[in-house]
Amino acid sequence: MSTKLNFIGHIRTPYQSIDECPNNISFNGPLCRLEINDELVSELNGLTRGQHILILYWLGRCAENTEGFQCIGSKQQAGTFALRTPFRPNPIGAAVLPITAIYDAAIEVRGLDCVDGTGLIDIKPAIFKEQL
Amino acid sequence: MSTKLNFIGHIRTPYQSIDECPNNISFNGPLCRLEINDELVSELNGLTRGQHILILYWLGRCAENTEGFQCIGSKQQAGTFALRTPFRPNPIGAAVLPITAIYDAAIEVRGLDCVDGTGLIDIKPAIFKEQL
Repeated sequence: MSTKLNFIGHIRTPYQSIDECPNNISFNGPLCRLEINDELVSELNGLTRGQHILILYWLGRCAENTEGFQCIGSKQQAGTFALRTPFRPNPIGAAVLPITAIYDAAIEVRGLDCVDGTGLIDIKPAIFKEQL
Repeated sequence: MSTKLNFIGHIRTPYQSIDECPNNISFNGPLCRLEINDELVSELNGLTRGQHILILYWLGRCAENTEGFQCIGSKQQAGTFALRTPFRPNPIGAAVLPITAIYDAAIEVRGLDCVDGTGLIDIKPAIFKEQL
């Protein structure tokens, strides 16, 4: 069973190669831009500066370094689903970060961990434990 | 630009129709099971009871109720990316919940908001603000 994902835009970061990317997100990292496809720009309405958003993105370029997904659970103590590694059946990255600025067709955040040009999958308001 | 998602399993919930589903996740909701495909079961190694996980799932059956994605940002104050609505360009649901039990090929959590049989996309350890 499978389905199709359409990128809603792409992410601009300072990292031109996977080797440059940090291992994880960081609140104090460099500025990054979520650039939204023209036809979806109006879907940003209602987001506000300072608001925390959940950002989903496609780590496919990273995963391309291996020949498809390699099961690792049987070879070491922790399996893929117990790790944040990009080498997973669906290489989706997830980050919760505050919005530092909003432009006409882009959102700015600090400290994403992905390579420049990464495909953007979704943006949604973050929900925190204390809200449930 | 698009890519392909492969389901890693499916989610068993008490909700047989979309109308029965609650509007959001809840820590006190009913038990739900994340059933993992046979070939990926070893990837659960290392997850522990009580640990919070980020669960990604495909709300496609919900989104099928409309004829494709409808832009709503231009028609009302809040656009799709400012809402948690399942009617979005990529209908991915995201929930952070603690594991209540681990079985050979399944993980149990409480309070998911999706219909029985929903496609499972990913499971990864949750990261909280205070860890960054």
